[in-house]
Amino acid sequence: VTVSDLTEAELVARIQSRLPPAPDWLIVGIGDDAAVVEPARGRLEVLTVDSVVEGVHFDRRFTPPGAIGHRALAVNLSDLAAMGAQPRLALLSLALPATLACGDFDELVGGLTALATRERLTVVGGNLTRSPGPLVVDVTVAGTVKRRQALTRGGARPGDGIFVTGTIGAAAAGLQMLRAARPELQGNGQRCAADEQDAAGVQRCIHRYLYAQPRIRIGLLLARNRAATACMDLSDGLADGVRRVAEASGVGILLDADRLPIDPGARRWFDACGADPVVEALSGGDDYELVFASRPKLLGRLRAVTAHGGVPVTRVGVCTPEPGLLVRRGRESAGTTIPLPLGFSHFR
Amino acid sequence: VTVSDLTEAELVARIQSRLPPAPDWLIVGIGDDAAVVEPARGRLEVLTVDSVVEGVHFDRRFTPPGAIGHRALAVNLSDLAAMGAQPRLALLSLALPATLACGDFDELVGGLTALATRERLTVVGGNLTRSPGPLVVDVTVAGTVKRRQALTRGGARPGDGIFVTGTIGAAAAGLQMLRAARPELQGNGQRCAADEQDAAGVQRCIHRYLYAQPRIRIGLLLARNRAATACMDLSDGLADGVRRVAEASGVGILLDADRLPIDPGARRWFDACGADPVVEALSGGDDYELVFASRPKLLGRLRAVTAHGGVPVTRVGVCTPEPGLLVRRGRESAGTTIPLPLGFSHFR
Repeated sequence: VTVSDLTEAELVARIQSRLPPAPDWLIVGIGDDAAVVEPARGRLEVLTVDSVVEGVHFDRRFTPPGAIGHRALAVNLSDLAAMGAQPRLALLSLALPATLACGDFDELVGGLTALATRERLTVVGGNLTRSPGPLVVDVTVAGTVKRRQALTRGGARPGDGIFVTGTIGAAAAGLQMLRAARPELQGNGQRCAADEQDAAGVQRCIHRYLYAQPRIRIGLLLARNRAATACMDLSDGLADGVRRVAEASGVGILLDADRLPIDPGARRWFDACGADPVVEALSGGDDYELVFASRPKLLGRLRAVTAHGGVPVTRVGVCTPEPGLLVRRGRESAGTTIPLPLGFSHFR
Repeated sequence: VTVSDLTEAELVARIQSRLPPAPDWLIVGIGDDAAVVEPARGRLEVLTVDSVVEGVHFDRRFTPPGAIGHRALAVNLSDLAAMGAQPRLALLSLALPATLACGDFDELVGGLTALATRERLTVVGGNLTRSPGPLVVDVTVAGTVKRRQALTRGGARPGDGIFVTGTIGAAAAGLQMLRAARPELQGNGQRCAADEQDAAGVQRCIHRYLYAQPRIRIGLLLARNRAATACMDLSDGLADGVRRVAEASGVGILLDADRLPIDPGARRWFDACGADPVVEALSGGDDYELVFASRPKLLGRLRAVTAHGGVPVTRVGVCTPEPGLLVRRGRESAGTTIPLPLGFSHFR
């Protein structure tokens, strides 16, 4: 049974059956021309849209449908986290190939609604259409933030430290591991075998690629405590994130390669593949961690945040007055600096 | 030059160059992880998302890029109009084939931003990705409405009149005319030649298909004057609209075929093709008119609305206590009734 055997109303009903009861502020929900909501009192609204496209952001041959749904929402929640916003609602727009099995549709929706429920986010509406090509999941989310607490990319100043939440590199390694397990999908390189690695590290990297957790909690705490001067999420990798914070803030950034919190399983994988773990971890995307800047005098606030943020925070560099993005490798005294590698880009 | 020759930042800059200056309420606009906006004071928010997919909602072989951009926004504004909402902001999510010419990209964006500017709607953010398949334009819009003024599909009662704005059938005829002009695209039927028709009628139908105008103004007036008991837009045709209003309101609806405001050019076209103009006009979509219900005692208010709505309004039927959707053909005394034809459906 595929989605083309069901009516649009039946597909919508399958989505609705996975949603928790509607909150009071939802005045008109799914089923009318548009949703009507009561705005959150005394707060600003934070809005973003992001899509995941089959063949670009995921490969259905090794990405379970639940992970596709999870990712489609996670990329958006990660943007809210980077602004310090509390998630509130989502609209889903799905373009479905006629051949999509109903079970896969249910799992996809289930992956998305499970994350939505966990983060107390309400699906208020959406749109279903068929796709003559790839599966496309487009999600719009809205969150709220208090006035003057929104975190932007543009507030870092020379002397601010650069910090990263959690670990990096695991999602990129996880994707390579999934590909390596399917030799028919491999292009050049990445011919390592995952079974030469530690099983726990492999499993962690793959799970990280498939089910990355947006850093909502620490984003909220950074905003509420005004502990960060700039913030952004790492959807396209740390190199890309650092570059954008530097551009928006008008500073340079010097990273210290030795301090990067590279996932140990990912490091082992990249080493075994003959790749440079630092370059791979800097340029690999999909970790959905946050990079943020914080002033030395905010250290007390930052400690309070990290004590309750639920994720480690590592200082990985510093903002410099002179423009430029550099990575220092080796000990501080004897090390060399190299230009920052590029992150992932969809276009040129 | 195609979009794959440009960076994402360059493509975003091309969009931004077509946008008017940002309003005061936009606190963080395009270029950060998310947009931050000040909610409209004392009003409810109305949110909807809709996408147009190449090969499903438009055919690039005879739809100019500007019309694709126009349509992607118009379908959403039409949903806001049906709720009686004032448009406020939009988020754009574009999935672009690598072969899309930059000039076509600019025209697409131009078609969308021209309509946005005309309706004083602000583009606050979005997302660009490449597509390995069709061009997909996904637009989310937010508008505002005063408490207790939102129009839903669910308020019609037996005895209420059913009204339609403007004319119907022109967009469906326009699409057939565009296809007929390209014999290589024709499937079965629709082999009429447009040049047998009156030139003005043909031009009007084609323009209507390509650049349908969402009925924002009359939607707002119906809401403000509480002149309608239910309302919905005709994206999937009048038959579909009437069916959904009837379902949501728990009434039956009897339409009068002789009163349907079928565009005269469309009627001539359907006649020449040997098709039944009533069935075609009822089931054809893309007109983006509104269908609404209004109570006899609201007639005074309705007259005030139609005097300033900028579009004719026609009474086409009545809500009945017994369920069922019927169309009466011929004179009231001697006519026959037939079941309502189905509207367009993406799925089964």
